[in-house]
Amino acid sequence: MNKKKILNDPVYGFINIPNDLIFDIIEHRYFQRLRRIKQLGLTDLVYPGALHTRFHHALGAMDLMRRALNSLQDKGVEISDEERQAGMLAILLHDVGHGPFSHTLEFSLFKGVHHEQVGLWMMDRLNKEFNGALDMTISIFTNKYHRPFFHQLVSSQLDIDRLDYLKRDSFFTGVYEGSIGSERIIKMLNVASEHLVVEEKGIYSIENFLSARRLMYWQVYLHKTAVSAEMMLIKLIQRAKELTQQGEKVPATPALSIFLERNLDVKDFGEDQDILEVYALLDDSDIWGSIKFWRDHKDIILRTLSERLLDRKLLGISFSNDPIGRIITDDLMQKVSSKYNINDHEASYLVQTGSVSNSAYIASGQSIKILRKHGEVVDVAEASDLPNIKAMSKIVTKHYLCAPKELLKH
Amino acid sequence: MNKKKILNDPVYGFINIPNDLIFDIIEHRYFQRLRRIKQLGLTDLVYPGALHTRFHHALGAMDLMRRALNSLQDKGVEISDEERQAGMLAILLHDVGHGPFSHTLEFSLFKGVHHEQVGLWMMDRLNKEFNGALDMTISIFTNKYHRPFFHQLVSSQLDIDRLDYLKRDSFFTGVYEGSIGSERIIKMLNVASEHLVVEEKGIYSIENFLSARRLMYWQVYLHKTAVSAEMMLIKLIQRAKELTQQGEKVPATPALSIFLERNLDVKDFGEDQDILEVYALLDDSDIWGSIKFWRDHKDIILRTLSERLLDRKLLGISFSNDPIGRIITDDLMQKVSSKYNINDHEASYLVQTGSVSNSAYIASGQSIKILRKHGEVVDVAEASDLPNIKAMSKIVTKHYLCAPKELLKH
Amino acid sequence: MNKKKILNDPVYGFINIPNDLIFDIIEHRYFQRLRRIKQLGLTDLVYPGALHTRFHHALGAMDLMRRALNSLQDKGVEISDEERQAGMLAILLHDVGHGPFSHTLEFSLFKGVHHEQVGLWMMDRLNKEFNGALDMTISIFTNKYHRPFFHQLVSSQLDIDRLDYLKRDSFFTGVYEGSIGSERIIKMLNVASEHLVVEEKGIYSIENFLSARRLMYWQVYLHKTAVSAEMMLIKLIQRAKELTQQGEKVPATPALSIFLERNLDVKDFGEDQDILEVYALLDDSDIWGSIKFWRDHKDIILRTLSERLLDRKLLGISFSNDPIGRIITDDLMQKVSSKYNINDHEASYLVQTGSVSNSAYIASGQSIKILRKHGEVVDVAEASDLPNIKAMSKIVTKHYLCAPKELLKH
Amino acid sequence: MNKKKILNDPVYGFINIPNDLIFDIIEHRYFQRLRRIKQLGLTDLVYPGALHTRFHHALGAMDLMRRALNSLQDKGVEISDEERQAGMLAILLHDVGHGPFSHTLEFSLFKGVHHEQVGLWMMDRLNKEFNGALDMTISIFTNKYHRPFFHQLVSSQLDIDRLDYLKRDSFFTGVYEGSIGSERIIKMLNVASEHLVVEEKGIYSIENFLSARRLMYWQVYLHKTAVSAEMMLIKLIQRAKELTQQGEKVPATPALSIFLERNLDVKDFGEDQDILEVYALLDDSDIWGSIKFWRDHKDIILRTLSERLLDRKLLGISFSNDPIGRIITDDLMQKVSSKYNINDHEASYLVQTGSVSNSAYIASGQSIKILRKHGEVVDVAEASDLPNIKAMSKIVTKHYLCAPKELLKH
Repeated sequence: MNKKKILNDPVYGFINIPNDLIFDIIEHRYFQRLRRIKQLGLTDLVYPGALHTRFHHALGAMDLMRRALNSLQDKGVEISDEERQAGMLAILLHDVGHGPFSHTLEFSLFKGVHHEQVGLWMMDRLNKEFNGALDMTISIFTNKYHRPFFHQLVSSQLDIDRLDYLKRDSFFTGVYEGSIGSERIIKMLNVASEHLVVEEKGIYSIENFLSARRLMYWQVYLHKTAVSAEMMLIKLIQRAKELTQQGEKVPATPALSIFLERNLDVKDFGEDQDILEVYALLDDSDIWGSIKFWRDHKDIILRTLSERLLDRKLLGISFSNDPIGRIITDDLMQKVSSKYNINDHEASYLVQTGSVSNSAYIASGQSIKILRKHGEVVDVAEASDLPNIKAMSKIVTKHYLCAPKELLKH
Repeated sequence: MNKKKILNDPVYGFINIPNDLIFDIIEHRYFQRLRRIKQLGLTDLVYPGALHTRFHHALGAMDLMRRALNSLQDKGVEISDEERQAGMLAILLHDVGHGPFSHTLEFSLFKGVHHEQVGLWMMDRLNKEFNGALDMTISIFTNKYHRPFFHQLVSSQLDIDRLDYLKRDSFFTGVYEGSIGSERIIKMLNVASEHLVVEEKGIYSIENFLSARRLMYWQVYLHKTAVSAEMMLIKLIQRAKELTQQGEKVPATPALSIFLERNLDVKDFGEDQDILEVYALLDDSDIWGSIKFWRDHKDIILRTLSERLLDRKLLGISFSNDPIGRIITDDLMQKVSSKYNINDHEASYLVQTGSVSNSAYIASGQSIKILRKHGEVVDVAEASDLPNIKAMSKIVTKHYLCAPKELLKH
Repeated sequence: MNKKKILNDPVYGFINIPNDLIFDIIEHRYFQRLRRIKQLGLTDLVYPGALHTRFHHALGAMDLMRRALNSLQDKGVEISDEERQAGMLAILLHDVGHGPFSHTLEFSLFKGVHHEQVGLWMMDRLNKEFNGALDMTISIFTNKYHRPFFHQLVSSQLDIDRLDYLKRDSFFTGVYEGSIGSERIIKMLNVASEHLVVEEKGIYSIENFLSARRLMYWQVYLHKTAVSAEMMLIKLIQRAKELTQQGEKVPATPALSIFLERNLDVKDFGEDQDILEVYALLDDSDIWGSIKFWRDHKDIILRTLSERLLDRKLLGISFSNDPIGRIITDDLMQKVSSKYNINDHEASYLVQTGSVSNSAYIASGQSIKILRKHGEVVDVAEASDLPNIKAMSKIVTKHYLCAPKELLKH
Repeated sequence: MNKKKILNDPVYGFINIPNDLIFDIIEHRYFQRLRRIKQLGLTDLVYPGALHTRFHHALGAMDLMRRALNSLQDKGVEISDEERQAGMLAILLHDVGHGPFSHTLEFSLFKGVHHEQVGLWMMDRLNKEFNGALDMTISIFTNKYHRPFFHQLVSSQLDIDRLDYLKRDSFFTGVYEGSIGSERIIKMLNVASEHLVVEEKGIYSIENFLSARRLMYWQVYLHKTAVSAEMMLIKLIQRAKELTQQGEKVPATPALSIFLERNLDVKDFGEDQDILEVYALLDDSDIWGSIKFWRDHKDIILRTLSERLLDRKLLGISFSNDPIGRIITDDLMQKVSSKYNINDHEASYLVQTGSVSNSAYIASGQSIKILRKHGEVVDVAEASDLPNIKAMSKIVTKHYLCAPKELLKH
């Protein structure tokens, strides 16, 4: 069977699957599951084109990695065939541990289980299944490989992950101006003392990359309406867990039921191998399928949040620079209680406060290194003429208040 | 509340919602449901970007309609504000009656219930809800309006529906060369004796449109792998209905359960208003959510087909110009029976024959009318210099045979 | 000096210059001259974006060749490094012999001197300059190389030349629907018995390619207004030659003057090496620069045609399927004579008839070969299900009549 | 005659010519001349696609203006038909006064004659020709119109001019990441107290616009190689003037000859109406056409610079943050003198120093005004959370040194 398939990608044109091992990993159920996990969670409620999946992102990133490694080789960096394959697999699998709705439910459906950790467990199992073929891949992913630039291509301030998702998210949302020069940036990458650096002439591309990233936070990733929808989904899952654990009958797909019944945390994942297999059955369709049951549930909270998500009757939301005061929320809760005839605890599901920030996108403590003409390596923030790079990398926090629209207005 | 919203569309840039009525129709749960019905069913198993929905297509078509009506007005065709709104609503709602997976399940989940008929019933209900505001819309949709070109813009050989979906499907699949000059074709449209015509200079654009459409059939719509997946889904639903109606317990979402339990046909829809409401709750997520239950079902057919769809272990498929002979299928069935240890009836779910054709895309008896320079209107197939137009509009049928890959090879 | 430069191309993104020899050829004045020869002559008078040059097309084609050769190698066709370089150089230089305004002036400025022949002479000189480094390149270009598919990639019904220019012309004119799937077609190419073939599954891409090409003829290459402008330019050069050779003073750039003074034909080019060097100094700017002198010339024809071209006051033009009758042109000439107060011979410069056809784009006697699944090679026109391919490859001729607009109308 | 033409634009798709007056202005020789003035001067020597003209830019800007005015009307800003037409004409004609190679020769071919001033003189003549139809257009262009936002749309920190040229230059150079969200920014514009403002939610689009603009300076507008070519062209024209005024015979096109012979300045333009008409005959092709004569001129400087520009054998260039010291240049001049056997004055044409800055793009004293939610108008630099906006608007100056490459290296 010919496994050198070519995939159509509206973003890059074609993506080649380079060899049999990579083909087999893509065919694996762990990876196919990503077909049903959307990259941007509920963002399509605002940007209707934003339906692209983790599956597509992972393949796109793999192709960018191939181009990056080719370009580095052209510059004289030695890269063996094994390293090439491991680098491509590491980026292909970097998101394999994501659960339904990606980041949205990461901390409500489970307790303290990061998708990177789950991803690593999955890679370990794949490694067993493929007789150790992923050893170097895992070594790169966990930053144990002796040539750090491989890991930095997978995960750093200017990694292939970002180069793909910013371009891809910009493409599918239609926020064209968030597009970045992925290909140009790749041509500017180099390796110095086995670390990833950007050649000096690439400095304006980096600045533009940071600016595009910033635009995408506020225009897309932290868009008010999407935040409201995500908060509603989090609350809905919390309610479903609460009711289930109180002994109420809350129908859900088999895999989801297990996570509703038990408060599984990282320790359980580690101890019980079956839990990972159940997790590997979960995707966005478990959530939507279960919401279909909840639309008619006797619990008003479950019912209301489900119906509102399905019919896009979202809670209103307002952003502010300061935390929301207790007086405001108490007043809103009272209004909600009386309007819906529910108790305070129930009302708390419909009046939510919290904060969002772009910190998820700005890993602190890391930085982009610039390779000067004469071989010197400096931090991008220290390169002359670019005070704005520092400014653009600033972590900004905004506080939000969600509640039924008609009440929020008063 | 400002209802003149602007939506981002990667295909056209921006789509404006022009007035309050249209905004309210878009917000209606009937229309929001289309967010969860993919335009191309299971085609994303082949083209991973093809995740766009009926919702997005309907909005895009509405915007093309606006541009088409503007262009006709610029050419002197009188169009009142009411007609403009009705025309835009007619195309906005032309697909509102689609069920899960669009055409795929149209004839297996229900009996003889066309999506246009369901759509009309839904429009009738919306019309009541909006106090008759959709009278003219429905008149256009049912071709009763006294100016036929409005209906022809909604439904004909060269309608706005096709102008949007060909462009959109080409965009999201990444099959760029299937893209058509929607905007140029729109500029070439005119009205003669209240019928839609194309100006003569547009003849090469039409030819190119037909060629692109043809490419899209074979490259995308009737792609072997997608056909195989669709056949599997049809069989899966048939099996779920069969088991349910035999009294087996087949868990499914509430709305889907009702359609599994009863063989509802067009008469039932007409007589029982509640059935339409249940239908209006159905979308792709009911199917995927239910498949999640069936993956572990004790019935081997239900289980096998579910797992194969989720993990993309599709049945093999081969195409031929002639119908598949009985001897071949009998032989295959026997092999399947013995391999899976199932009876003949069960084996029939895994060995499928049938045919696909581009007839769904080529409405017979209709044609594209060309407006000659001196005012004469002729059929495009009769216009000189274009024998290929006839050739490109030919209905082609291909016969397929689906079966487990390892058996199909022998 | 690092000669592995990267060029930005709006069509493909980036074009890499792969090695030093290719870099040096690109830097050569023969090749740099192509920067000042527009690909589409005067077409920018209709499509204002169509300003792209032979220089850009040649580089784009070189990059497509690289991708085609890579793809063939992936399929097991053996290609040596020397062949790769020669193939890329052959396509890079395939248009190096073009004169000002490409095809427009090919037969009026010179007599019977085809650009391919001039190109070959230039390659011969380059070969001497580069000590025989172009031996294989020339062998491929002249179809003497023992592996014919190399020449077929450079020049055939489905060559890299067309794959680039159709895509590029579509891009810069903005006639998007003329775009072809260059990259997909390239992936469908293969080699059988050292001849270029297309794999069977590429048949719809080929059909689409032919349809797009046909659209481009009539929408762009043979657009009425562009044809009128080109005829005017031809007549203008004829008049300038006529006057010069009659002893009138007709200022022109040094290189152009030589070609105005003498009726050089293929024999002269062959015998006198200096003529080639003078030719190599000519480009579009010699024509425009000289027209700037002619705008005020005392000869009414030279003056009128120059002014009309500069100010885009083009002659009117009408197309018909039959040749223009003598009676019509005689009548028009009389009107022109009397209106402009000029003699019959002079009037003949303002009343022109002739014909255009797509024959330049359809090389007769050649065909596209399809590789069937089981290894059989057939002609595309004989492949089943495609009567339209024949139709689309039909040579169509149209007759035109040019004259001052106000007279043409009567 | 139907004057409602539609033009193809690869950037926007279609551009409509809305009425007869605008059509007639476009047809005028003043405007048609812009077809032969490239937007980016000699930048195509670096970015081969950058051949687009002032003509194309002006039409694109006109179409953006139409969309901006539509959007403002939708927001309730009253705009009369006359104002709409005048606004569109003002942007259409904003660059009509540009001379050959746009900014490059603005201060060497003439003395102190700004293109805006020449443009205004041309508009005055057009106004006479069209019987005062441009009164309001001129009033807007000169900022005398009582509603300042019209002028601000034509010329300010965030005007339609920039919204078009940044997008267009990005498109044709292929520097995709310099693309801006023109359409989104237009949707964010509003009018407060008759001044142009940006709605607060547009703040990230503005930031991105500034970042893209900054990228474009350094990546394109002030690209080293393009700066070198431009300096060479300036020196070439200076030499041609010097020689001509010394009585040497320097052939040139008729219009250019006049400007070589005389040192015309703003006073002459104002006093002598014929000079404007001669100016209106000048475009890029006068320069290229004349360079064709100079390639063989006996003056070594004229000859060398001409040949080097035609064959792209550009002078080397190096950038530094500090002015180039006298010692370095003196040393280089000596080397050039001795190598080329020329005197000091002649050598000064081949050793050039100077500076470039982005100040041309950042009009000091102006700013972008933000409309806060509650109606307050603030300066963008004062809006919170955007220290980088100030940084990105900083004027940066770089100093360059041009000289023959082989000498520069030492």
